[in-house]
Amino acid sequence: MDDEPAAEILDAAYLALCEHGYADLTIQTIADESDRSKATVHYHYDSKAELLAALLDELYERYADRLDAADGDTARQRLDALLEVLLADEPPLDGEFHTAILSVAARAPHDDAMQERVAAFDRRLFETLREVVAVGVDAGEFDDGVDPGAAAERLATAIKGAQLRRFAADRSTGRCRDAIDGLVETQLQQPAVAEGTRR
Amino acid sequence: MDDEPAAEILDAAYLALCEHGYADLTIQTIADESDRSKATVHYHYDSKAELLAALLDELYERYADRLDAADGDTARQRLDALLEVLLADEPPLDGEFHTAILSVAARAPHDDAMQERVAAFDRRLFETLREVVAVGVDAGEFDDGVDPGAAAERLATAIKGAQLRRFAADRSTGRCRDAIDGLVETQLQQPAVAEGTRR
Repeated sequence: MDDEPAAEILDAAYLALCEHGYADLTIQTIADESDRSKATVHYHYDSKAELLAALLDELYERYADRLDAADGDTARQRLDALLEVLLADEPPLDGEFHTAILSVAARAPHDDAMQERVAAFDRRLFETLREVVAVGVDAGEFDDGVDPGAAAERLATAIKGAQLRRFAADRSTGRCRDAIDGLVETQLQQPAVAEGTRR
Repeated sequence: MDDEPAAEILDAAYLALCEHGYADLTIQTIADESDRSKATVHYHYDSKAELLAALLDELYERYADRLDAADGDTARQRLDALLEVLLADEPPLDGEFHTAILSVAARAPHDDAMQERVAAFDRRLFETLREVVAVGVDAGEFDDGVDPGAAAERLATAIKGAQLRRFAADRSTGRCRDAIDGLVETQLQQPAVAEGTRR
């Protein structure tokens, strides 16, 4: 295949990102992870920014595929499968994947193009959660006072917080999982707080 | 004062961290932000790691002071003041502060010393929230079925998620604030979900 070296370079860039974080990600560390030279890396990608954009596109596809693959007979089972994918420290979206995304996310406030890509991950998570909650409300699994959009915002917020605390602050998986389970329960089984109650 | 240049260098490092993020934080960018030379920076701090450790100690003090200063006549008012400090995009803990901490947090999985410091921020937040919730439960402001430790874990998780989505994924302040308000309401006014319900 024509693009085999390019794909290999992206794989190497992912490994380098997982290992070193964004701050130490250089064309040299990427070349070191592959069996390619710096010149070859530069031949396929003009800049680190271009390479990173291609890598994020690939990681986005992987993320979307995994969210889609989280399945179950009921909305509740599908939501549980999603939480497992998003919070368990296991492949394919393991701690390395989340650490890599976090590393890129932290860069986003300084880089508009990267922020747009990070926002796409966020929107994808939100939309997936909204759809699962809506199906569950329609099926009578979740309280019919639950607003799927508001619940999805809260669940996405809680999930991102659990990932951040798990991987950056080294909070234990069990504590993070307990926190998220508690947040999920209260969002789905109680009517959503009406908009008007906001201060 | 003997340590005036050292303090000035830390101020410059903070500005450089806010502006460039951890990835582009170098002794050179720090020197550029101050009116000191690279040699002077090196005279006061042997390495970037040492300088960053000193900066994080100072930011930790600032963080702890601001959490302590969030006040109110009731636990509810104090909690609202805390959320304002933690989520509003205003000085003294403004978007730049949270972006700087996020940038450091993303580095934590790759650096044990930094992870320990990031974990200290997390513990401080957790302990502050636990104390406020405990006071509110004792005063009868929050449901007496609320477990302050479990509620504080959930609130800390939700707050970190809101900060991450706000600053990395550019989610609007209003949406993040709505999500967090909804999560807070359901944690404090409903009895905490019993441990036994965890899957």
